[in-house]
Amino acid sequence: MSLLIVGSVAFDTIETPTTSRDNILGGSATFASVAAAFFHPVQVVAVVGGDWEKSHTQRLEKRGIDVSGIEIVKDGKTFRWSGKYLENMNDRETLDTQLNVLGDFQPKLPDKFRRAKYVLLANGSTKTQHEVVDQLLGPELVIADTMNLWINIEHDELLRLMKRIDGLVLNDSEAKMLTGEANTVTAGRKLLTMGPKFVIVKKGEHGAFFFAEYETYIVPAFPTENLVDPTGAGDSFAGAMLGYIASVGNTDPETIKRSLAYGAIVAAAAVEGFSIEQLEQLNRDTVEQRMSEFRKMTSF
Amino acid sequence: MSLLIVGSVAFDTIETPTTSRDNILGGSATFASVAAAFFHPVQVVAVVGGDWEKSHTQRLEKRGIDVSGIEIVKDGKTFRWSGKYLENMNDRETLDTQLNVLGDFQPKLPDKFRRAKYVLLANGSTKTQHEVVDQLLGPELVIADTMNLWINIEHDELLRLMKRIDGLVLNDSEAKMLTGEANTVTAGRKLLTMGPKFVIVKKGEHGAFFFAEYETYIVPAFPTENLVDPTGAGDSFAGAMLGYIASVGNTDPETIKRSLAYGAIVAAAAVEGFSIEQLEQLNRDTVEQRMSEFRKMTSF
Repeated sequence: MSLLIVGSVAFDTIETPTTSRDNILGGSATFASVAAAFFHPVQVVAVVGGDWEKSHTQRLEKRGIDVSGIEIVKDGKTFRWSGKYLENMNDRETLDTQLNVLGDFQPKLPDKFRRAKYVLLANGSTKTQHEVVDQLLGPELVIADTMNLWINIEHDELLRLMKRIDGLVLNDSEAKMLTGEANTVTAGRKLLTMGPKFVIVKKGEHGAFFFAEYETYIVPAFPTENLVDPTGAGDSFAGAMLGYIASVGNTDPETIKRSLAYGAIVAAAAVEGFSIEQLEQLNRDTVEQRMSEFRKMTSF
Repeated sequence: MSLLIVGSVAFDTIETPTTSRDNILGGSATFASVAAAFFHPVQVVAVVGGDWEKSHTQRLEKRGIDVSGIEIVKDGKTFRWSGKYLENMNDRETLDTQLNVLGDFQPKLPDKFRRAKYVLLANGSTKTQHEVVDQLLGPELVIADTMNLWINIEHDELLRLMKRIDGLVLNDSEAKMLTGEANTVTAGRKLLTMGPKFVIVKKGEHGAFFFAEYETYIVPAFPTENLVDPTGAGDSFAGAMLGYIASVGNTDPETIKRSLAYGAIVAAAAVEGFSIEQLEQLNRDTVEQRMSEFRKMTSF
């Protein structure tokens, strides 16, 4: 069952209270693809510039990612984002954003990708997410990840997208912003009435909620003492979730609950290093080992 | 296996963004006792003033609580606390505190209470908590609940208490304050090195962590859309936890994990009403029903 991820590839410059790193591999499609690839082969669609090097391609291929859908715009530059995390490592300031080739990105899905059964519209412009849905031929599950930026500047497009997808992923403050509700559970349930079959509300270091008409699931975050760089945690969560679902090939309640736990585990690994560096240290076996620990911590 | 709870009984005046209530039954021992009594008979020790009415006694007795240890100081007044919850229902301001008879409280445990096997030192002065420990004869498990006030004004007594108890309960900001650590997991583990066999870090609407030398457990909060008054949530959590442990009669890992889940369920019920009003609507059967739902929401 093929798995397609469409989103951004970026070069990030990150400052944390203790250290900083320049031009490291980032972007929603990058984190989501590497996270999903623990569980299932991944097809990725994104755009990069002439500054994209062969070593980047190889790095993704090494994780089992089909990069033939990464469009290289030779005379353009890859999207760049620069941010600074505050002392609490939760709040961050954007220092600089250069959209570059991402600004004109119009995803063209190769024919073989259009029949993907499992699709993640990783964080990115809602308009781009619509363009992907337009090209899909009979997907079984489409999940879209969004954020405050798109809620603000593409509000109507987002409301329209919510009626075209199966699952919406966003964080708790965004769920509250989009619904005007102060209670996270109330906000999540209200979003359900706006189109999607299920809604996942991420709560950062506090885990996530899953809301569907007849089900509510809760997954705590996998605990870590080694928070290096929170960038990409949400993308990794969504990627791991969809990767696991694709590997099982169904969306039964037990599969969904397990996918949330895998999402939590891979997201925790992502924040233990800059870029995808810590994810590259893991494989399916080490993920399964953490899964056993997680089950022991949470089952009652 | 007898269960003893020592703490405060109060008359609370509460303002929330939508409503307010005057002189309602509150206090750490009140919430903890009512919560524990879902699972096991409770012996409570506290002090009240001449304004304490027979109807209050009856209200607690009706829940299966032995109130013979509530000392009535005829010419004094019961402890009064007045607080205001802000728009987010998490932060609160104390408007007024009248310690009254609580200020001179020196708990005298009736002989039959001194041999209690399970003891909760509900939130209250650390000095008082020490006086209770002084009087115990061979308890199997002593848990102390504390808060920022005591960390600030009875810091050394608290450090000393931590070496005399089995379990410490406090919230995440308090754990960070007491250890100087910014990461909740790191703070919890550091507290373990300061005396107690286990540490429970409450995270309000995000659940709780349990740390012991070889175990870490995580329990999410039981989701509620009906947050009426957060007062007493932490007391109810600790009370339900110890009540369940006493009912089982051991502190095996599985018992502890289940006790955390019961704590989360009863705490969620406590916040769905003012005072103990919502807890009074429940019984063990309704608690078990929520337990089944909770397991379904969280198991993977």
